[in-house]
Amino acid sequence: MSILLSSAERLRQQIAFITEVDKLKEIFRQTILTQSRRAENSAEHSWHFALMIIVLAEHSNHQPLDVLRILKMVLIHDLVEIDAGDTFAYDTKNMADQHARESVAATRIFGLLPADQAREFRALWDEFEERATPEARFATACDRFHPMLLNCLTQGHAWQRHGVTHDRVLARNAHVADGSTTIWEYAVKMIDDAVGAGHLAPKPEANP
Amino acid sequence: MSILLSSAERLRQQIAFITEVDKLKEIFRQTILTQSRRAENSAEHSWHFALMIIVLAEHSNHQPLDVLRILKMVLIHDLVEIDAGDTFAYDTKNMADQHARESVAATRIFGLLPADQAREFRALWDEFEERATPEARFATACDRFHPMLLNCLTQGHAWQRHGVTHDRVLARNAHVADGSTTIWEYAVKMIDDAVGAGHLAPKPEANP
Repeated sequence: MSILLSSAERLRQQIAFITEVDKLKEIFRQTILTQSRRAENSAEHSWHFALMIIVLAEHSNHQPLDVLRILKMVLIHDLVEIDAGDTFAYDTKNMADQHARESVAATRIFGLLPADQAREFRALWDEFEERATPEARFATACDRFHPMLLNCLTQGHAWQRHGVTHDRVLARNAHVADGSTTIWEYAVKMIDDAVGAGHLAPKPEANP
Repeated sequence: MSILLSSAERLRQQIAFITEVDKLKEIFRQTILTQSRRAENSAEHSWHFALMIIVLAEHSNHQPLDVLRILKMVLIHDLVEIDAGDTFAYDTKNMADQHARESVAATRIFGLLPADQAREFRALWDEFEERATPEARFATACDRFHPMLLNCLTQGHAWQRHGVTHDRVLARNAHVADGSTTIWEYAVKMIDDAVGAGHLAPKPEANP
C-alpha cells in the first residue's frame, strides 16, 4: 500500500537522511591527499569523483551518456560504507563478503528516505554495482582511475604500504577500458611511469 | 582562433585540473562535523550539498528544474576557495572584496581546462553567483541551508564561536525562501528551536 506523505513529512525524512550521511566524512580510505598527505575520506572522494565525471564524460566509449544518472550514482555509491566501512581495492579477504555487507547497509541507509526515493537510490546503487549499463561502466572506470591517480601523485603511497605490485594494479583495474579506452591508455602509461620511478614494485619473479 | 586539441591532449589538461582541485580538501570552513566535531572542508561540503540537491529538488519553488546544471554548479562552486580561501557567511569585512578575489581565482583554476570547458565552468560559476535563474536560486538556498543544519546539529558551534545572533541568521539566510519556501519554513522553525535550546543567542536588546 502506498502512503502519500505531506511535503513537510517528506522533508523531515529527507533531512534525517541528510543528517545521517554526514558520517561518510569520517570513513577513511587508503589513498592520501596530494598536499597534507592525510588519508582521504569517502565524502571528499565522492566529490572529486563526481567532478571527474563532468570533466571527463567525453572520453566514455559509449556516447551519449545520461550524465545526471551517473552523478546520482556517484554521489550515493559510497554511502554503504557508513555501516560496512571502506574495503581496500586489493584486500581480497574483505572483498569476499563486501557486497553482502554493503547490501544490508544500503537497505538501512536508503530506507531513511521516503519510499519512492529509497527505491530510486537502491536501483542506482545496484546499477553501479552491476556495471551492466554504459553509465555504470563509465562511473566505475572513473572510480578506479581516481585512486590510481592519487597514488601516482603521492609516490605510490597506498601501493607501497600494502605491497601491491604492477601486475595486480593492471589486473584489478583492467575494466577501466570497458568504460573508456582513452582513460585506460592514459592509466597504463601513468602506472608504467610509477614503476619506472620506483613508486610501484614490478611483478615478483616466479620461483624457478 | 579556435585550436582543436587531440583527445589525448584534452585529457592531459583535464587531469592537470583534476589534480589541482585536490587542494579543495584542505580548505576548512567554520562548520564542524556531527560525529568527530572536526572542521568541515569545502570538498566534503560540496559533496553533501550536491546530495542535498538530488534529495530535495522536489521542494524548489520553481518546477521543473535542470538538476544536471545545478549539480555542475554545486560541484564547482567552491573551487575558487583554493586561491581565495573560505569566507565565513557572517564575516562582513572579508565579504566586501570576496567576489573580486574569487573572480581572479575562477579565471586561473577554470583556465587549466580546455577552452570550451573553461568557458562552460565560468558561466556556471557566474550563474550561481548571480542567483538570477531558478536553478541558481535553488542551489544557493541549499548552500545556505547546509551550514544552518550542521550548526543546529552541533549545538550552534560556529554561531557561538563568532557571536552570531538570531536576527543575523534570519537576515543573512532569508533568500533561501527565493529558492524554496518549504525549506525556509523548516529552517525558521529549526533556528527558533536553536534559540530555545540556548544554542543561538537572541537578538541583542537595543540601547534605550
